[in-house]
Amino acid sequence: MAAPAPARRDAAAASLPGMVTVVEVGPRDGFQMERGLIPTATKIALIEGMIEAGLRHFEATSFVSPRAVPQLADAAEVIAALRGRPGVQLTALVPNAKGAARAAEAGVDAMVVFLSASDTHNRKNVNRPTEESLAGLAGICRIAGDAGIPVQGAIATSFGCPFEGEVPHGRVVAIARQMADLGIRTLSLGDTTGMATPPLVRGLCRALGEAVPEMAPTLHFHNTRGIGLANVLAGLETGVTRYESSIGGLGGCPFAAGATGNICTEDLVYLLDECGIESGVDLEKLIEVAHRVEAAIGRELPGQVMKAGPRLRRHATGEVATANG
Amino acid sequence: MAAPAPARRDAAAASLPGMVTVVEVGPRDGFQMERGLIPTATKIALIEGMIEAGLRHFEATSFVSPRAVPQLADAAEVIAALRGRPGVQLTALVPNAKGAARAAEAGVDAMVVFLSASDTHNRKNVNRPTEESLAGLAGICRIAGDAGIPVQGAIATSFGCPFEGEVPHGRVVAIARQMADLGIRTLSLGDTTGMATPPLVRGLCRALGEAVPEMAPTLHFHNTRGIGLANVLAGLETGVTRYESSIGGLGGCPFAAGATGNICTEDLVYLLDECGIESGVDLEKLIEVAHRVEAAIGRELPGQVMKAGPRLRRHATGEVATANG
Repeated sequence: MAAPAPARRDAAAASLPGMVTVVEVGPRDGFQMERGLIPTATKIALIEGMIEAGLRHFEATSFVSPRAVPQLADAAEVIAALRGRPGVQLTALVPNAKGAARAAEAGVDAMVVFLSASDTHNRKNVNRPTEESLAGLAGICRIAGDAGIPVQGAIATSFGCPFEGEVPHGRVVAIARQMADLGIRTLSLGDTTGMATPPLVRGLCRALGEAVPEMAPTLHFHNTRGIGLANVLAGLETGVTRYESSIGGLGGCPFAAGATGNICTEDLVYLLDECGIESGVDLEKLIEVAHRVEAAIGRELPGQVMKAGPRLRRHATGEVATANG
Repeated sequence: MAAPAPARRDAAAASLPGMVTVVEVGPRDGFQMERGLIPTATKIALIEGMIEAGLRHFEATSFVSPRAVPQLADAAEVIAALRGRPGVQLTALVPNAKGAARAAEAGVDAMVVFLSASDTHNRKNVNRPTEESLAGLAGICRIAGDAGIPVQGAIATSFGCPFEGEVPHGRVVAIARQMADLGIRTLSLGDTTGMATPPLVRGLCRALGEAVPEMAPTLHFHNTRGIGLANVLAGLETGVTRYESSIGGLGGCPFAAGATGNICTEDLVYLLDECGIESGVDLEKLIEVAHRVEAAIGRELPGQVMKAGPRLRRHATGEVATANG
């Protein structure tokens, strides 16, 4: 059979962005949830592998209290080993002024400040109401500003809260407004427990664009209920060009045993590739690194493309017995 | 925090269909891949559970040779136990005239004839070229016609072949044309090994609609590369109103160890619910049945919603420790 490649892009998809930034959050959001301490050298080697595969944006670590999260006690060492590579952006989560000072000293490319749109989730996460977290941002922004380091925002439970239920778009937009007033220009909308849906993605992105047009949204989806990449498609159709994901789907969901957490970077890159959207990532190389991550943490990761391979990986006809249908 | 429910449907999604038919293929496509024989009574009880949850369309079994697929040797018994329930449609896969005669005698509501768009896959599957399978359809249609039973078509590897690579839309459309000429009016486009992508879904559905407008397409996606439900979203946006899936994601992929097969019915229903699209299925009840299926086959299923629960299942604030972000 003749098999010319069907067009990857089509009229219906003509409005999709031509290029997308993939932000790899596995080294922070994923490693943080691993119980066994991952050696610093291993973390660095894995991130280097991802850089070789073409990833350029990393949430590389978090300057939280080493006592609270021993896994990330090596934050400064990770940044020191990787900083200054051409085109590579290393960001780190910064929970408070103390963390900001450590992050500034380590020389991160940007600090990520975070809070939850839902009060209950914010209290569970950092033991204070959302308003108090908001009030604390100014101090962090000052430290970052003094060091000449930009600040990015992240709002957890942007699409719903596992304790409170629906989170009104207006609540997220109001927080975004306050962050914008502090000079923040990049905002990650966190789907912390996998409650985002295509209509919510479209609705929130539109509401944010209308109310805080100077703020560039990043979408951070979890695949907890299986529709993480459907949400990405909705985001792409809405014109969002920045997505966070973790290699192999590293990380998990603290609310449901066995449920997955972050969407998987290789699966995201696969979707982008197949929609004709540039991400600069070499999928085959990234799959290799995903397998190395799996080996490093000693358990199977939920990524699908790392198991099945890219779309046009051919099988020898003698290789497998097929089933009907 | 006040939490009014954000609208499930929005302007951007206004063109999505209001209602969708979910065809449950787990009892055929899923059970067929299980090694351990599932007792007939168990199969019947599980399908009854799915009927109670609101599912109405089942690919219930296959009239293949019992020697080739011992798991489905009880095809006639399964149909006998379930036929005649109000509103319930039981279809069965029929590979040849012999199977058609058995299906007619059992009293299925429709026979499903199948072949692969790719010659190599067709040979691997049924040991003859696609053209020969096509030629055999007339005989099956005659037997079905004599029994007053409608015939539905299914084309495997519609979105790509693991042996040949790309499958041109024209190839699928040409087969659909021949099926339409035999009086077939429903056609399942099978994404046999998870090679469908949003642009391919849009492209093939459009090509089929233009060339064979009398044929109603059903989309049968696999989640092998993680984008099964993104493909559903693309299908919905293209106006397709019929989808096949399997409970819990039952079934697998013969080409990749650990890779998933069919998209999962609960995850599909969750996506439809959240997009404001009626399917008639009660998600909570369906999740219960998915857990019973898991118990029956004795292994964990890949379904996500069955692990995480519906979107607004609230957690007590003391229940879990959360992680940052």
